[in-house]
Amino acid sequence: MQKIMNPQPAEWEGLCQRPELPIADLQQLVQQIFTDVKKNGDAAVKKYTSLFDGAVTDTLKVSEAEINEAIAQVPSELKEAIQTAKANIEKFHTSQIEQKQVTETTAGVNCWRESRGIEKVGIYIPGGSAPLFSTVLMLGIPAQIAGCKEVIMCTPPDKNGVINPAILYAASVVGVTAIYKVGGIQAIAALAVGTDSVPKVFKIFGPGNQYVAAAKQYAVNYNVATDLPAGPSEVLVIADATCNPEFVAADLLSQAEHGADSQVILLSDNETVLDAVNKAIEKQTDELPRKDIVVKCLLNSKSILINSIDECVTFSNIYAPEHLIIASDRAEDYADGITSAGSVFLGNYSCESAGDYASGTNHTLPTNGYARNYSGVSLDSFVKKITFQKITATGLQNIGPAIEIMAAAEQLNAHKNAVTIRLKRLQNV
Amino acid sequence: MQKIMNPQPAEWEGLCQRPELPIADLQQLVQQIFTDVKKNGDAAVKKYTSLFDGAVTDTLKVSEAEINEAIAQVPSELKEAIQTAKANIEKFHTSQIEQKQVTETTAGVNCWRESRGIEKVGIYIPGGSAPLFSTVLMLGIPAQIAGCKEVIMCTPPDKNGVINPAILYAASVVGVTAIYKVGGIQAIAALAVGTDSVPKVFKIFGPGNQYVAAAKQYAVNYNVATDLPAGPSEVLVIADATCNPEFVAADLLSQAEHGADSQVILLSDNETVLDAVNKAIEKQTDELPRKDIVVKCLLNSKSILINSIDECVTFSNIYAPEHLIIASDRAEDYADGITSAGSVFLGNYSCESAGDYASGTNHTLPTNGYARNYSGVSLDSFVKKITFQKITATGLQNIGPAIEIMAAAEQLNAHKNAVTIRLKRLQNV
Repeated sequence: MQKIMNPQPAEWEGLCQRPELPIADLQQLVQQIFTDVKKNGDAAVKKYTSLFDGAVTDTLKVSEAEINEAIAQVPSELKEAIQTAKANIEKFHTSQIEQKQVTETTAGVNCWRESRGIEKVGIYIPGGSAPLFSTVLMLGIPAQIAGCKEVIMCTPPDKNGVINPAILYAASVVGVTAIYKVGGIQAIAALAVGTDSVPKVFKIFGPGNQYVAAAKQYAVNYNVATDLPAGPSEVLVIADATCNPEFVAADLLSQAEHGADSQVILLSDNETVLDAVNKAIEKQTDELPRKDIVVKCLLNSKSILINSIDECVTFSNIYAPEHLIIASDRAEDYADGITSAGSVFLGNYSCESAGDYASGTNHTLPTNGYARNYSGVSLDSFVKKITFQKITATGLQNIGPAIEIMAAAEQLNAHKNAVTIRLKRLQNV
Repeated sequence: MQKIMNPQPAEWEGLCQRPELPIADLQQLVQQIFTDVKKNGDAAVKKYTSLFDGAVTDTLKVSEAEINEAIAQVPSELKEAIQTAKANIEKFHTSQIEQKQVTETTAGVNCWRESRGIEKVGIYIPGGSAPLFSTVLMLGIPAQIAGCKEVIMCTPPDKNGVINPAILYAASVVGVTAIYKVGGIQAIAALAVGTDSVPKVFKIFGPGNQYVAAAKQYAVNYNVATDLPAGPSEVLVIADATCNPEFVAADLLSQAEHGADSQVILLSDNETVLDAVNKAIEKQTDELPRKDIVVKCLLNSKSILINSIDECVTFSNIYAPEHLIIASDRAEDYADGITSAGSVFLGNYSCESAGDYASGTNHTLPTNGYARNYSGVSLDSFVKKITFQKITATGLQNIGPAIEIMAAAEQLNAHKNAVTIRLKRLQNV
């Protein structure tokens, strides 16, 4: 990690820049695959699955038998761990249910909101070496609480056409309604346009590589909503003298192992802390299986000395990290000052991996500075909040004249007339 | 309006198609203007303002003096109407403030959310014949309640470089922090990239023509969020024998006057109601100043006879209207069945124009079927909900083993280690 001493506030914005990503122009490829899937449906999906994933799939839909077989294969201690995580995620996301609350804005004018689950949602789970079954929980559980009627999961099969058992187990636990063996651009295309096998959905969730990210962005052209813009994962840790440098090092490394393009930032008001953490990082890195990735990530990463913890918080607000850890006994004192972050971990025992798996908060969060303008995934992401109003005759008499004046001033006379015709009727009653 | 009798449910999806819009390929123009504004700043903005709006603007920012002059020009009855609307919109959006609520998911594991206003937001108000000051209220008021620090408004000037006084008055009432005389693609570009005059913002709100819509979509490439995908306005009315056909006709017409590409739909279980409404439409249309627009809109519009009001609701859920009026004494009985709509108006005195101006609900709503996957603008649109967690040593002992098992199964050993190192330390205490 690069060590930076007391940078001037004028330099902070520059220090908050993410490593620049190679921009691949995937627009043409994405457009071609969407057009093909729209025209040729399942045949196109299977063609690209064979081409990109090297897997021949006769049937895209995962069968009941395959699911049952997978469930039998998952070790019972992993099942129990998943159930523990599920219970916590369920509890926290259930607390996000918005109760109906009627507001009488003027006598006789009642307004309220009601939430409805998005009827059909798609969940994308990447393939690759690590089976991200935790993401199945993070997306499937709020979908279930929201009352989404169809929860369609797509995930690429391995070369033998098989999906990792833990992913299938997690899907069965959270009530996913159908699972398809398809990944990449062709999965997003199938969810966006619909095929004989894969239903068209209204919103697509889930992480993925640059191909999946480009496809999700393109899906907007088919009136499909998506969860969040994608970017590499990141953590910012603010540590003071009350931190445990070994813990801080472990937290930074847990983020660094995500990928060479991840970024970790350490801020402190105490140079001894910076040095102790850096020393602990060196020691711990050696023992990690994903050491190569970690070392590359640390090249993008910075440890920065800043005057005070309050100023560290100011810096963090400019950076707008996906994950923010405040490694301090006084962590809670700084919470009010945080304005931009995806998820915040307060104190020396609130490690980020708790939020990644099992504490209950969601791990689908805004990266790349998007914490300035986006919230992470929550129950809100799976519902629409519909406004309702019920206006009585008296209510309309109360607010009608204001509506008539405003509509006339906007030169919308038919808008005005919808009120006038009612008020006249009431005069004649 | 086209009259359709008892269509089969298999035909409903087809009937719910919106009139096809001419797709203008504006990508190249948008890209060119963004690049120019990024490179040449205010000079480029002024150039396009002269080119597209025919207005020469020395200074983009509206001065204090101009605002004061405008305030003096607005008739006092319009000021009072705006204040009435403001009070109601404020009351309803204040009711959307989410209280902090800590959930202990497991003993020692506390999770909660806190809302923070998006620091810098941009509000776009279209120009043209009708001054849409009501939209200033609908976007400015929740921004103020959310605590957005900078609320930047852009709106095109007329040929004399002047902005409608009612727009400036509304902006002053809702605490807009700066107003710029710029419209169209160049306004969205300025808000997305920032110039010497116009600050870069994190999220852009507001309606606009196809140029503005294309620019908002393109702004995503500059990490800027936007409120909603755009589309022509629309209303669906479900009316039964207890409706007042004159009222229903007035509501349909108040939507139809928005534009020739708007769409209005009438559903009823009663043919006499359909005929009475159609007759009332003919009568009322003649008296409207925007008669030409209304007549064109009605060509796109349908009145449909359906077996029962419950089935009308089912049809409406497929259509997913921006505005849904249930013109019935029993309107509230049908509310539970509504799954997709932007804003719902229950009963014979809840006219849509009430929600457009003064009842308190927001009028920035999902069109074109987007009510299937988007909510309308609300306080939520102006905040980020940040998750927080505070885990005690005991809390980590409770959930730590589950995290270790899950992280190991996902082959993320550094994630596991962040827990292990803490649990070991606790064993040694």
